[in-house]
Amino acid sequence: MALQMYELSGRDERLRFSPYCWRVRYALAHKGLECDFIPWRFTQKEAIAFSGQGKVPVLVDGETTVTDSYEIFRYLDREYPDKPLLGDDTAESRARFFKFYSERALAPGILRTIVMDLFNVVHPDDQAYFRETREKALGRSLEEMHAPSKGLSALDAALEPLRGRLEEADFLDGEAPGGADYMVFGHFMWARCVSAADLVSNADPVYAWIERMLDQHGGVGRNATRIVDIEGGYPG
Amino acid sequence: MALQMYELSGRDERLRFSPYCWRVRYALAHKGLECDFIPWRFTQKEAIAFSGQGKVPVLVDGETTVTDSYEIFRYLDREYPDKPLLGDDTAESRARFFKFYSERALAPGILRTIVMDLFNVVHPDDQAYFRETREKALGRSLEEMHAPSKGLSALDAALEPLRGRLEEADFLDGEAPGGADYMVFGHFMWARCVSAADLVSNADPVYAWIERMLDQHGGVGRNATRIVDIEGGYPG
Repeated sequence: MALQMYELSGRDERLRFSPYCWRVRYALAHKGLECDFIPWRFTQKEAIAFSGQGKVPVLVDGETTVTDSYEIFRYLDREYPDKPLLGDDTAESRARFFKFYSERALAPGILRTIVMDLFNVVHPDDQAYFRETREKALGRSLEEMHAPSKGLSALDAALEPLRGRLEEADFLDGEAPGGADYMVFGHFMWARCVSAADLVSNADPVYAWIERMLDQHGGVGRNATRIVDIEGGYPG
Repeated sequence: MALQMYELSGRDERLRFSPYCWRVRYALAHKGLECDFIPWRFTQKEAIAFSGQGKVPVLVDGETTVTDSYEIFRYLDREYPDKPLLGDDTAESRARFFKFYSERALAPGILRTIVMDLFNVVHPDDQAYFRETREKALGRSLEEMHAPSKGLSALDAALEPLRGRLEEADFLDGEAPGGADYMVFGHFMWARCVSAADLVSNADPVYAWIERMLDQHGGVGRNATRIVDIEGGYPG
């Protein structure tokens, strides 16, 4: 039986823009696993109540339910050990750092750049929830958070180590992409799906890596629906 | 025969403050290898001309000479495979990221904080060289670089992913320190040896990790001579 994954969607159901869900999409593609993706929205808490919590991704594999993108990586490596995502103990310890690097170094700058794009993409029924939870977590209004030039400048600084690594290698994990690449790339898919903003200049080694990542596994990233592909979807 | 390492020293020969040499000191201690450390100064290019380049660390192991801290890690793992520093291919690919993280994300903020301390510690014969090379590389005078509050603020932001990882684990490499820890910790030893500046508040998980790192391998870091230990060494 194919796997099932509950995945965040927007006001157009084709828009799938959670960075955490994108990590798992790439991880599943890496392992060549079939999966049914079930669109889900922020306020549909009952639909995933069976998982014991209220966020996606939620992966269902027969009798087993797994939540949290990193825990899903671990689960997939345990149950489907071919083509490991995380590797042995040392490799996995180091993979954890990429989780924090993407969530704590890259995400804040990206969020300041795309927060109003995110708000535009969220389903109307979810907008109040989105605004309330984000404003509470960050202690300011969405409109105050929105500061693309500050966001891009913070992102530019935070990208330095990624840039260094990608000047010497095609992927963070070496000659082929692996768990570390997927862990970080989710946040670039987040921005790509909801926004027309250019996060990285095309002379940047990070840009070339993004292009390579988009083409991996049959173009799983490249083929994703973006707000800019939807007629009338993007203001301006 | 014991290994030999040429190591940067300051105006007091006991001061050993190169972040790259500290990486190797820790790596050697990790493997339990004996080593004679030969003090060396920036302008003593002839003393290491046999290595084909002009920087330390230079490791000499019998007939073999190895330069560059990361290449020395690789060499040590090849020749002394017990207690690996870098691990298998995936683990090593990820270890590279810590090199760039420390050099490109952490070092700039630390440098802005300690640059005049460094200048004070450098041997008088090396000061002109130090000033000229650093000012050329960074495009401004040492005095302009010196901006501790800006440096500490940049460092604070750059530490976020480290903080996240060290909230959940004692070391970057898990339950015991490894190559990733040494790669990053070198820059904290750099600051510790030359400066009295507190880079990290004592409530920070990074602070607790620094304390643990100082105590590793018989206190190799804790026992290092600091400028503040030298009578009359520290202005103010």
